[in-house]
Amino acid sequence: MAGNSFGQAFKITTFGESHGKGIGVIIDGCPSRIPLMEEDFIGEMARRRPGRTHFDTPRVELDQVEIFSGVFEGFTTGTPIALLIRNDDVKSEPYEILRELFRPGHADYTYFKKYGHFDFRGGGRSSARETAARVAAGVVAQKVVALSDIVVVAYTREMGGIRAKDIDLEAINTNPFYCPDVAVIDKMKETVLSAKEEGDSIGGIVEIRVTGCPAGLGEPVFDKLSADLAKAVMSVGAVKGVEIGAGFETARLKGSENNDPITPTGFKTNNAGGILGGISNGDDIILRAAVKPIPSIMIDQDTIDREGRPDRLRLTGRFDTSAVPRIVPVLEAMVKLVLADHYLRAKSNGSNQERGC
Amino acid sequence: MAGNSFGQAFKITTFGESHGKGIGVIIDGCPSRIPLMEEDFIGEMARRRPGRTHFDTPRVELDQVEIFSGVFEGFTTGTPIALLIRNDDVKSEPYEILRELFRPGHADYTYFKKYGHFDFRGGGRSSARETAARVAAGVVAQKVVALSDIVVVAYTREMGGIRAKDIDLEAINTNPFYCPDVAVIDKMKETVLSAKEEGDSIGGIVEIRVTGCPAGLGEPVFDKLSADLAKAVMSVGAVKGVEIGAGFETARLKGSENNDPITPTGFKTNNAGGILGGISNGDDIILRAAVKPIPSIMIDQDTIDREGRPDRLRLTGRFDTSAVPRIVPVLEAMVKLVLADHYLRAKSNGSNQERGC
Amino acid sequence: MAGNSFGQAFKITTFGESHGKGIGVIIDGCPSRIPLMEEDFIGEMARRRPGRTHFDTPRVELDQVEIFSGVFEGFTTGTPIALLIRNDDVKSEPYEILRELFRPGHADYTYFKKYGHFDFRGGGRSSARETAARVAAGVVAQKVVALSDIVVVAYTREMGGIRAKDIDLEAINTNPFYCPDVAVIDKMKETVLSAKEEGDSIGGIVEIRVTGCPAGLGEPVFDKLSADLAKAVMSVGAVKGVEIGAGFETARLKGSENNDPITPTGFKTNNAGGILGGISNGDDIILRAAVKPIPSIMIDQDTIDREGRPDRLRLTGRFDTSAVPRIVPVLEAMVKLVLADHYLRAKSNGSNQERGC
Amino acid sequence: MAGNSFGQAFKITTFGESHGKGIGVIIDGCPSRIPLMEEDFIGEMARRRPGRTHFDTPRVELDQVEIFSGVFEGFTTGTPIALLIRNDDVKSEPYEILRELFRPGHADYTYFKKYGHFDFRGGGRSSARETAARVAAGVVAQKVVALSDIVVVAYTREMGGIRAKDIDLEAINTNPFYCPDVAVIDKMKETVLSAKEEGDSIGGIVEIRVTGCPAGLGEPVFDKLSADLAKAVMSVGAVKGVEIGAGFETARLKGSENNDPITPTGFKTNNAGGILGGISNGDDIILRAAVKPIPSIMIDQDTIDREGRPDRLRLTGRFDTSAVPRIVPVLEAMVKLVLADHYLRAKSNGSNQERGC
Repeated sequence: MAGNSFGQAFKITTFGESHGKGIGVIIDGCPSRIPLMEEDFIGEMARRRPGRTHFDTPRVELDQVEIFSGVFEGFTTGTPIALLIRNDDVKSEPYEILRELFRPGHADYTYFKKYGHFDFRGGGRSSARETAARVAAGVVAQKVVALSDIVVVAYTREMGGIRAKDIDLEAINTNPFYCPDVAVIDKMKETVLSAKEEGDSIGGIVEIRVTGCPAGLGEPVFDKLSADLAKAVMSVGAVKGVEIGAGFETARLKGSENNDPITPTGFKTNNAGGILGGISNGDDIILRAAVKPIPSIMIDQDTIDREGRPDRLRLTGRFDTSAVPRIVPVLEAMVKLVLADHYLRAKSNGSNQERGC
Repeated sequence: MAGNSFGQAFKITTFGESHGKGIGVIIDGCPSRIPLMEEDFIGEMARRRPGRTHFDTPRVELDQVEIFSGVFEGFTTGTPIALLIRNDDVKSEPYEILRELFRPGHADYTYFKKYGHFDFRGGGRSSARETAARVAAGVVAQKVVALSDIVVVAYTREMGGIRAKDIDLEAINTNPFYCPDVAVIDKMKETVLSAKEEGDSIGGIVEIRVTGCPAGLGEPVFDKLSADLAKAVMSVGAVKGVEIGAGFETARLKGSENNDPITPTGFKTNNAGGILGGISNGDDIILRAAVKPIPSIMIDQDTIDREGRPDRLRLTGRFDTSAVPRIVPVLEAMVKLVLADHYLRAKSNGSNQERGC
Repeated sequence: MAGNSFGQAFKITTFGESHGKGIGVIIDGCPSRIPLMEEDFIGEMARRRPGRTHFDTPRVELDQVEIFSGVFEGFTTGTPIALLIRNDDVKSEPYEILRELFRPGHADYTYFKKYGHFDFRGGGRSSARETAARVAAGVVAQKVVALSDIVVVAYTREMGGIRAKDIDLEAINTNPFYCPDVAVIDKMKETVLSAKEEGDSIGGIVEIRVTGCPAGLGEPVFDKLSADLAKAVMSVGAVKGVEIGAGFETARLKGSENNDPITPTGFKTNNAGGILGGISNGDDIILRAAVKPIPSIMIDQDTIDREGRPDRLRLTGRFDTSAVPRIVPVLEAMVKLVLADHYLRAKSNGSNQERGC
Repeated sequence: MAGNSFGQAFKITTFGESHGKGIGVIIDGCPSRIPLMEEDFIGEMARRRPGRTHFDTPRVELDQVEIFSGVFEGFTTGTPIALLIRNDDVKSEPYEILRELFRPGHADYTYFKKYGHFDFRGGGRSSARETAARVAAGVVAQKVVALSDIVVVAYTREMGGIRAKDIDLEAINTNPFYCPDVAVIDKMKETVLSAKEEGDSIGGIVEIRVTGCPAGLGEPVFDKLSADLAKAVMSVGAVKGVEIGAGFETARLKGSENNDPITPTGFKTNNAGGILGGISNGDDIILRAAVKPIPSIMIDQDTIDREGRPDRLRLTGRFDTSAVPRIVPVLEAMVKLVLADHYLRAKSNGSNQERGC
């Protein structure tokens, strides 16, 4: 009853650690006869990759994805797709000092309590490096959701308190922050660099928008599309909150303001964020994730060692200043995984539309 | 691949509709030899019950829980516990007018799209009535978490924009709003009555606090305690957002502000909300859910009929003005269900502590 | 991680005990818009019902199935179908003597070891009465497999050593033994009555034949159709063996004898029993289950009590002389459940045929 | 809803094809702090390996197991264990002729029907090579069952009609057939060689015996230990039948003969095969699997091509004459996997013994 699998019809299982041989993912349930090759992964892996810009950790991983199984003569076979990503640039030495001390804000302490050990080399399994496997799986999920007209786009809505106001989806890939509002990019840069200088870190908010999603995805009452999206997003380490549509604002609206009137051509507003009763309603799905500041900071912190004795810790090493923007393609991948799963699940649950009656 | 089950080690499956014979839940995985009788359910069911005060819908349900199976001579047997709750006060007539029209903000439209039909009698399966089964299951989950020292308390943190400032857990059950701050109760009353008068509805924020949770619950990387809590809370119809610990605020904090320093006697602060790397850290678990205003309002709204033709709809009937406070025991139950599940899961996943090495 | 659910796309969860309020089943995943009413259950329930003939236990259960949820205006809704069967004729008194003694061949001892108690009133959950819920679920599964051309027929192949030679499917429902060979019915009668007179019991072999099954059902490598059928059949208490196609005989055949040659019009022989590599091949699926003699006998047996002290036990009460033939509709139902599940699973796993490429 | 995972608490997912890069398995749920290193796999892998003796296929695979993740400093970490086995000796050329023709008795035809393609290079995913990953997983399962006193031993009970009479467990690893009766080994040799000369193949029966299993494993009513064992064994491609304890013989016994009397020191007989009501009773668990003759024979056979046109096929290549004995360690591994899973499941399901009440 460990929990390293996600999804039912499109089920992924990830494995691997940040400073072991590598990481990977098994995808079970991908339809057969979909074209897939190793080149397909390059784009998305590059978006998440460390060492992408001087804002990121200098750790350089090529993050080359090896298709180990499940593809024959260029097409998926319907059997499990195994994707492997080797760890190339593993430097464990700087972590030796952490053999005894728990890093505040990290999972060292809880892994130690749960498993009786912790991997002091960058967190091992709890490292954000694990999310590279999710991005790789997301590339395959993308091919499944593309069987429908679903398009998923994620971007940085806010970073270090700087908020994107105008959402121009075209702008997202033109700047290192995956920010849809070019007007605030300079401010974002300043904010990041200033935090970096202080040895500190910052958080942010990522927004994900799904267009072209057919009505009918989601399985009430527990596997609501909203519930599975919330789980998917919250399963990414740095995320501390998730909201759909009007989200927390909705708590202060009246019903007459919050209800989305229905017209023959669609919903007049979209406070629901594209989901009603846990089922997609055909409108855009909109969700936001709150991302905490990266806990690795180069500032003195109180902590304890394995024996419970107090100590002080100042990290040195290779860290991002913020999980945003590198978390953007990860959250985009998680949403794709949920949609691929529910798209395939809806095929089996036999609504009469599906059967053509 | 429908989705009416929740949990793995402590697994519940709910069934039933708002205007059918009744609702119920099967609990599979409850340990044997736990005392359980029908009287145990009275308290919690009463807290969620409609017709509780004049702020609620006048629908009166006794919500008596029948133990249909799984208990013998006053003790659980380890076999499935079936709990049935009959629908007593079913009045479908007022709903006849809804046979053709989709209610805005409700699941009528999406159920119709997914299943090729919708239950115009109060939403059928999508009705909040289904949550009574969750509350009943929560009573059993409570007995499981009590095998540990876990205590779960939920309360209204905010309602119609009125926010509880001082959190006095003793106060929660002394007022109809399950509000921990008696100073704001009068304002809450006014807000509810004013909305009621307008035929409108309001939303709110529910906070849930878990004390006594041992470190080590949660199954990375997907079944993180945080991820399963997010799913559990978001699976309740009216919830549009969920956050843990500092939540969305964390997006604007620096790492040096957000990290909780570790001391020999515990964490100095609790921005993490009791969960690190998806595993409980022994501190209080804190989460908040954003609850949207009830979509049933007695104000004219635009909608369409089954054929897609535009129409106007003004509801009449028996509705709450807000899902808060009746949703409070439901969310409390959901958190108990997650904890009971992870408490039992942790027993099998075999950390060495568990094995005593 | 208890185990009272079966299936994934067409998932059932049974509950209830032989001497409690009743038994039942929740079906999650049944497609919507399938006609279903309580009368649909009468036929199959009657086939399994005790008190059917003077060969059976005199316990009389009407086994009336109540549709508690999931059906609206005569059609399935896509939401969980709850079926309840009340226990009418519960006589627990004769069992009082069994409060302390474990019945040999029954589950009393193992339930006591596992759960710390056992239900001395007819075995409680371990009673064959639980299979009535499976038969009820099978009636719904029948409606799903009928969406394809699948037809499932089970019959008594052997009973107390008397073997049916000619298989005439028309004959099955013309005799109390569900025997397809009328020539051996008199011998079967004699065998049953002779065992009954001795207070003893007999076993048998049930054969199940599936026609009209399309090629392509089954999910390698673990959820092979053969593997799930084996589990389904072996999950019925009295079954101690299962074989498919030539089964145990195949161990003594040569490859040249066992291989089924393929021709443009189908397979020349069917030693495979309709399944190759765990996937249906379009030919008839044939399997056989070995059914042990009912352990309840009116003959002195050695046993022990709860404290481990030796004792002697001679049962008195209402017992069948053989689980065959009443197990026939149960095994037929189990096979239907597997096929309904795999039929719906195949829809989601997205072979290209399904997608029409 | 593909089916490449097995188990719940100790869950494995296999992947890979016979003529791709390799095969592998992810184990999720293995307890932490268990010593594990690559050398641990050598013994069992050697027992299943092709090219072991001149009775086997001359394909030589070193079957070296690489621990890719889940182990740190020589101990399991509680995170997913990924095991990789490269395909070293892949010769696909002889298979080119099979690009168009379905091999009788193999899964080519059904894979083609299900997935719209088939891997003509030795069956791809349907190849027995996949079972190497199961054997590797079995080595880890062995370490889990050894936390209890469970010992699992499998051996050839019958081969080509030659049956072992005396069961001497010490003899099993002294001969290439894993046969516990040295008296019949010469006859087995003759039978194999004679079939080989004819270009034909033979089947057999494998028996598995579990000692030291505590009472209480198994989760009624569907995940009975017997049911999960049946599924596990039947999920191995060549197996066409499975029986537990007296098995098919039980169909011809009377209750008075079949019931195992209970005494203060244990059961007098073991017709139940160590399982009552789906739960282990503390006695030895005994099961047998019927193994069909390998379908690859060097004799002319009727078949069809992808277009459905009739053809004749005579295979040439590297084949075993019998799946027995190489299937012996595979079935042993499957039984270990089931026991490891149920051992861990029993910890969570909370019988009162477990809780010490």
